[in-house]
Amino acid sequence: MDVQGLLDDIRESLTPIIGQGEVADYIPGLAGVHQAHFGMAVVMPDGEAYGTGDWEQPFSIQSISKLFTLAIAYAHDGDQLWQRVSREPSGDPFNSLMQLELHDGIPRNPFINSGAIVVADRLLSLGAGGTDVLAFLREESGNPGIELNPAVAASEAEHGHRNAAIANLLASYGNLENGVPEVLEEYFRQCSIEASCRDLATAGGFLTRGGIRADGSRMLTSSEAKRINAIMLTCGTYDAAGEFAYRVGLPAKSGVGGGILAVVPGRCTVCVWSPGLDARGNSLVGTTALDEFTTRTGWSIF
Amino acid sequence: MDVQGLLDDIRESLTPIIGQGEVADYIPGLAGVHQAHFGMAVVMPDGEAYGTGDWEQPFSIQSISKLFTLAIAYAHDGDQLWQRVSREPSGDPFNSLMQLELHDGIPRNPFINSGAIVVADRLLSLGAGGTDVLAFLREESGNPGIELNPAVAASEAEHGHRNAAIANLLASYGNLENGVPEVLEEYFRQCSIEASCRDLATAGGFLTRGGIRADGSRMLTSSEAKRINAIMLTCGTYDAAGEFAYRVGLPAKSGVGGGILAVVPGRCTVCVWSPGLDARGNSLVGTTALDEFTTRTGWSIF
Amino acid sequence: MDVQGLLDDIRESLTPIIGQGEVADYIPGLAGVHQAHFGMAVVMPDGEAYGTGDWEQPFSIQSISKLFTLAIAYAHDGDQLWQRVSREPSGDPFNSLMQLELHDGIPRNPFINSGAIVVADRLLSLGAGGTDVLAFLREESGNPGIELNPAVAASEAEHGHRNAAIANLLASYGNLENGVPEVLEEYFRQCSIEASCRDLATAGGFLTRGGIRADGSRMLTSSEAKRINAIMLTCGTYDAAGEFAYRVGLPAKSGVGGGILAVVPGRCTVCVWSPGLDARGNSLVGTTALDEFTTRTGWSIF
Amino acid sequence: MDVQGLLDDIRESLTPIIGQGEVADYIPGLAGVHQAHFGMAVVMPDGEAYGTGDWEQPFSIQSISKLFTLAIAYAHDGDQLWQRVSREPSGDPFNSLMQLELHDGIPRNPFINSGAIVVADRLLSLGAGGTDVLAFLREESGNPGIELNPAVAASEAEHGHRNAAIANLLASYGNLENGVPEVLEEYFRQCSIEASCRDLATAGGFLTRGGIRADGSRMLTSSEAKRINAIMLTCGTYDAAGEFAYRVGLPAKSGVGGGILAVVPGRCTVCVWSPGLDARGNSLVGTTALDEFTTRTGWSIF
Repeated sequence: MDVQGLLDDIRESLTPIIGQGEVADYIPGLAGVHQAHFGMAVVMPDGEAYGTGDWEQPFSIQSISKLFTLAIAYAHDGDQLWQRVSREPSGDPFNSLMQLELHDGIPRNPFINSGAIVVADRLLSLGAGGTDVLAFLREESGNPGIELNPAVAASEAEHGHRNAAIANLLASYGNLENGVPEVLEEYFRQCSIEASCRDLATAGGFLTRGGIRADGSRMLTSSEAKRINAIMLTCGTYDAAGEFAYRVGLPAKSGVGGGILAVVPGRCTVCVWSPGLDARGNSLVGTTALDEFTTRTGWSIF
Repeated sequence: MDVQGLLDDIRESLTPIIGQGEVADYIPGLAGVHQAHFGMAVVMPDGEAYGTGDWEQPFSIQSISKLFTLAIAYAHDGDQLWQRVSREPSGDPFNSLMQLELHDGIPRNPFINSGAIVVADRLLSLGAGGTDVLAFLREESGNPGIELNPAVAASEAEHGHRNAAIANLLASYGNLENGVPEVLEEYFRQCSIEASCRDLATAGGFLTRGGIRADGSRMLTSSEAKRINAIMLTCGTYDAAGEFAYRVGLPAKSGVGGGILAVVPGRCTVCVWSPGLDARGNSLVGTTALDEFTTRTGWSIF
Repeated sequence: MDVQGLLDDIRESLTPIIGQGEVADYIPGLAGVHQAHFGMAVVMPDGEAYGTGDWEQPFSIQSISKLFTLAIAYAHDGDQLWQRVSREPSGDPFNSLMQLELHDGIPRNPFINSGAIVVADRLLSLGAGGTDVLAFLREESGNPGIELNPAVAASEAEHGHRNAAIANLLASYGNLENGVPEVLEEYFRQCSIEASCRDLATAGGFLTRGGIRADGSRMLTSSEAKRINAIMLTCGTYDAAGEFAYRVGLPAKSGVGGGILAVVPGRCTVCVWSPGLDARGNSLVGTTALDEFTTRTGWSIF
Repeated sequence: MDVQGLLDDIRESLTPIIGQGEVADYIPGLAGVHQAHFGMAVVMPDGEAYGTGDWEQPFSIQSISKLFTLAIAYAHDGDQLWQRVSREPSGDPFNSLMQLELHDGIPRNPFINSGAIVVADRLLSLGAGGTDVLAFLREESGNPGIELNPAVAASEAEHGHRNAAIANLLASYGNLENGVPEVLEEYFRQCSIEASCRDLATAGGFLTRGGIRADGSRMLTSSEAKRINAIMLTCGTYDAAGEFAYRVGLPAKSGVGGGILAVVPGRCTVCVWSPGLDARGNSLVGTTALDEFTTRTGWSIF
């Protein structure tokens, strides 16, 4: 398959809609991004990379970090992790406290904010014994230049009352091991990482290699890697997981920065970036690009 | 692959747990079933069938009928159907009226009771212009002996206050085209069909053949068939869809009669039956059997 | 106090707003009422009656019937009644099924539809051993001409899907003693009674006489009569009970026909009628009239 | 009426149950209180005081402070206050975040924690231009010895994750004027005040004097004082307001320290203290004492 040609074709066919959607503006740090960006990368299990458009330009990965922090925590804790966070779709807006209350402080899954805050708490506890997500991304992508954006982290913290509410509610149920301020700082730090489509698609390679890291070491069993894919499919795109599975048919994790990282099990990872979001917080053009990709390749998992 | 050997192996390995779980007893018509049944069938796209245990014994298919009624309605209405029922996981017990109220009378998906009642209403409206689900099952399975169990249908109706509440609530939102009693009768009729693992796995073949029926005619486009698989994966096993995707990794639809029909896209269908249910209403032994099946074959979609 | 003068004054002062609000139109039987009606009656414990405007014209009492059916059921069952219906404000729209689900089929109070349906069920069970609400209203008001409006009852039944949903949900929780259709028929019958402000204020006299009926017989203990007043205050005006207590400061029961029956404990009953409703389903002009009444008399219970 | 004799009688009749109920132990500062305390005070509009048992012993007033902070804020802001907090019963546990989310950050009433936090925020904003609640209590009770308990305030803060969640959620909806830490500090400060039954009943006198303070100055209009009584009746005893109105029939505000302050409009205030709580967080013996009080005096407002 001529992957490069395919990517260029897709980008060209999307030209009329590039720039559509609403750029996230809940924090000043995100609001300034130019709307007309579009980048798309495909990376093979062996690391061979293809890309089109702004595929090498770093953007704010936001919630895509939740995929990597989950993988790190799961690699360390195994199925014990599920005592603190469930694996069920939330069926509700992504930052709902209601559901946390209905389930006695156990987040519905690790990809909604409450679940990711529990995972951030876990990574804090692991400390030096664990793997920092920034270090992990640098190693797996082979790009030591991946950085945090401290201004975005500060902006998140300043406007993070809702996440602070969630963290305090988790603490009230005894579902945090560290102090609320420390956990929130770590969580905002993770969200503020900036990386490119190329970086993210490369760093997600362990999910197409059955849990094997870039250096050949085993991070997860093949079965565990599949399980992360299953969680991505059922929970990875906020409350649009059903719609996304229906339209695109791939495990994926999106972020409000406009990125989406998808996995074609056994074949490749695909990362797309376009800052305009649809009503449910997923990249509007990015979703269309992935829809186009699975339609043309027939690589939907279904 | 020696499918027959695999099935026999799986049955043997499960012997210690066969009989576990609770047989559904909310209606007398189901409560009488002997707990120790176990059957499992695998059917290839060309109709070649393998089976073990009670794989040819008919059982009450209950909610597995929802898969077939959805396919028939979707084949007729196309994406217009989604104006009356969503495709999102419910994240809540399978018979919740609360969610119907929160979403103004639009069921979350076609596999919870409210959604299936809307689909039953649709089939009623299509009437002779549509395809009756019993006729469809007979044709697709090649078994003209598939029958309704009128005693079960009557028992459902007699104890069906909750479904009557749902149907009336749907009507109050203007989301039924026919009268409540007629819709409920049709819905209970669908649930009371009795078929074997062999029948169901064979009848589900169109989902492994990209939408082609047993007689070679096209029912759904390939893309539509995939979309039904996506809905099965995210919504097919009540509020355990996340857990099921995580453990088994296949699109599937379960019923409280203890049956589960799963699809391995492009490869085969698998149907398992064992009446004892787990806490969330899915066959306990059946889920374990499918878990075993994907572990041994590596045929998880992830 | 010159009660007659006071009532005439209040009516005059309200002239500019009479006709405001929205006439209930969820059933054709109510939609035809002329909006500009206004009537108000005050009746002393000894039956002496004062009135102004359309105070002797019958209107559809709708949910005001819930007050009388509650009194009859409570007189018979005493505190046992509370095993089937609570006495807490609902804090939610008056016809919510959600709350019924959250509280396992026990309605929050007897003045929301679900609670009144349980009370109707109870009256059905009491049958000849109990007192029919129509007969009760005729006897207490001294007006044998009070009638049901069968067209309204039929209209309620025809558009009563939501109430049918509630009744079926109650039945599914085992909280009905009679069949759903019989209970609904009785409930719609009760709502379709037509009486005037004079009739209702006179019939409510037992609440100002410490539980003594018009014929001098004891229906409720003094303490029981007070308790019904307490339920009216906290639950009698749908989800505006707090606002109503704040503004008017009297126990009251309203209906979507535009009537409100209020009790000044120990002093008198007041009934007002004006068909235009506010956003929460209470008579807009009627509430203002009662506000004026307590402001001028100082007879708020607070 | 021999008020002194009545109080002594009530205390004696309750002897068999004094000590029942569960002492609040969610913070260490409260858990140490001896369970067998019982005190009761009645204070006339002119300040004449009667009491029995431990009526002059200070206890942690906790949520009873919400009544006084509401009165101070309402005296200053008038009906503008209701733009930030509603006046409807909550119908749900007293610390629910769910309801805050369903109503876009507007607390249901000023007596649940979220509403009281908004009021605390308001008092902070008023600052020197307003009246501090501790100063207010000292002045109105005539007891300059009323103090905060800093250990209790610190204990509340340490275990106050749920209130911190609420405050952050309020902030996320833009319903706080001051910083979250400052508001919480003020709120915990208010809850940690210690006063006796005599102090509280005396300080609540403005509610029986139509809004006139102890020094004869007007704080609230007569109508505003009645409105506070209405809010107490419908919302003052957590989610047991309906039950409390039904049983006791008086406006009242309770606290988890075991105190309840009730108002008999125009006649007197009554304050009772006994640390053992019932399942809904109100003093078990205290509620019984007030029930007895209204039964014997006939002073229920109904």
